[in-house]
Amino acid sequence: MGDKSDRPTLAVHGGAGTLRRGAMTPAAEAGYRAGLAGALRAGHAVLAGGGAALDAVTAAVCALEDDPLFNAGRGAVFTRDGTHEMDAAVMDGNGCRAGAVAGICGPRNPVLAARAVMERSPHVMLVGEGAVQFCREAGLAFAEPGYFSTEARRQALALVLAQETAGVVETDAARRHGTVGAVARDRAGNLAAATSTGGMTAKLPGRVGDSPVIGAGTYADNASCAVSATGHGEFFVRYAVAHEIAARVVHRRQPLAEAAVAVVAELGRIGGSGGLVAVGADGAVALPFNCDGMYRGYVKDDGIVYTAIYDEPYAAS
Amino acid sequence: MGDKSDRPTLAVHGGAGTLRRGAMTPAAEAGYRAGLAGALRAGHAVLAGGGAALDAVTAAVCALEDDPLFNAGRGAVFTRDGTHEMDAAVMDGNGCRAGAVAGICGPRNPVLAARAVMERSPHVMLVGEGAVQFCREAGLAFAEPGYFSTEARRQALALVLAQETAGVVETDAARRHGTVGAVARDRAGNLAAATSTGGMTAKLPGRVGDSPVIGAGTYADNASCAVSATGHGEFFVRYAVAHEIAARVVHRRQPLAEAAVAVVAELGRIGGSGGLVAVGADGAVALPFNCDGMYRGYVKDDGIVYTAIYDEPYAAS
Repeated sequence: MGDKSDRPTLAVHGGAGTLRRGAMTPAAEAGYRAGLAGALRAGHAVLAGGGAALDAVTAAVCALEDDPLFNAGRGAVFTRDGTHEMDAAVMDGNGCRAGAVAGICGPRNPVLAARAVMERSPHVMLVGEGAVQFCREAGLAFAEPGYFSTEARRQALALVLAQETAGVVETDAARRHGTVGAVARDRAGNLAAATSTGGMTAKLPGRVGDSPVIGAGTYADNASCAVSATGHGEFFVRYAVAHEIAARVVHRRQPLAEAAVAVVAELGRIGGSGGLVAVGADGAVALPFNCDGMYRGYVKDDGIVYTAIYDEPYAAS
Repeated sequence: MGDKSDRPTLAVHGGAGTLRRGAMTPAAEAGYRAGLAGALRAGHAVLAGGGAALDAVTAAVCALEDDPLFNAGRGAVFTRDGTHEMDAAVMDGNGCRAGAVAGICGPRNPVLAARAVMERSPHVMLVGEGAVQFCREAGLAFAEPGYFSTEARRQALALVLAQETAGVVETDAARRHGTVGAVARDRAGNLAAATSTGGMTAKLPGRVGDSPVIGAGTYADNASCAVSATGHGEFFVRYAVAHEIAARVVHRRQPLAEAAVAVVAELGRIGGSGGLVAVGADGAVALPFNCDGMYRGYVKDDGIVYTAIYDEPYAAS
């Protein structure tokens, strides 16, 4: 891909916990694809205008947070207490700057909260009420708890809790997981990654997954790649998945796609379902997953938007 | 060190933010060394009895948490609100299992809270009130907030806040930082790491450093090494320091000591002061730091305890 090395690239995901093929209606599929395409166009507009990868991933993730179909921002899942606890992270590969928030409910776009931590505090990670208070003082836009809540997520909580009472183990990842994320390379060669999630349906309050853990669900370093992950977060934390891919690129000199595919396949073998999107220093993209599907897409310099959900050819639009 | 490959090894640190040489009295130094030696003996007793690395690091970190001289558990620093918010993590290199807590005040030994998350929940990281509630239900020993508070830390908070009011930047790491940690290799060849901290004096409530971030301040994988870090946490998170060392051992086939020294030196060059303790799959230990000093020590099969504070020969006892 050396011929494209000066060209901007953006990839997004809307979570590896997709609806089962049988449960996916044409209308639902159209909605998910429209959401992915909208996020890709929002990020591509930044890159096409000469903007920074950091601004592109922020714009793309904001678009996905605003879309109630995806488990982040509006449409976030409920904890077992019926509350929302959102996590997000952003990382700028130019200088390896990072910001993250966990367990927050208030800021309308959690990814902007993570970015404020990165740019306007000396810290990398703020959690809970302290993080919310910081966002308030930073002047971020807030929303009432009801803004984040959707009927579909409320039904998912009721179903999962009823299943637990009945001793049934939830096996449908679509009802439990979900994350959104973006990675980008801009014309200057800078990389960036952002990830945002409502976590798991019926999660224990206080549970933090991989999304806001730098090196697990989110990582970016101009020297190697930018990665945003989705899936069974505990596995991604234990194996420091995003940083592991960057480390293979740097220390083993593996091509990005080879490293990303290998790590995701290994995770699958030990029971860690999920996937990720990654972009390399040369603009190469990788979007591997080890489960039924992952809402995903990418766009390169020509502005053509490619989206896919299952193991299927990408649809261009 | 191949001749020692079946022998147990333990290394501990009590933080990279040491007292300046000029401010260290013989009595204070004796206190720190006694604390380190006590932790090393507690962990060594486990290993010498054929116990697991995981139990050894837990015992060593509990000893350091119980010692008010160190910034973890009893003796934790104060947030700017005058509260304590403690973080801890533990990782078992056998299976890469991990547990972490952040922003908690209640459990008497935060490292036991992290271990309960690992062993008694499906999660890796719990934060804030949700984490405290989980610990209560798990039956962990709790302490009143006053148990953690010491007069020395209260004076440090007052001083830092007064300095901020006066526009003076605190440059004495000893007053702000501090962490405790341990790494071990047991006779079976299993590795483990544990880290615990009260964070930074006068920190923003909700701030989380590297200690509970798996891959940043804490990591263990039997295939490579176990690492526990201390220092300016934000840098350790941004560069995924603990996992970076493990990755160099695996992917670059660097000897552990070489990898650990190189990463710590690089951190120092970009302004990230601190250090770490690490033990490799062959039982080799590394205790590098890039600042004035780091409370540290190690013990091998012969039970002789070695401690040091500054760049100086280790004292045996």
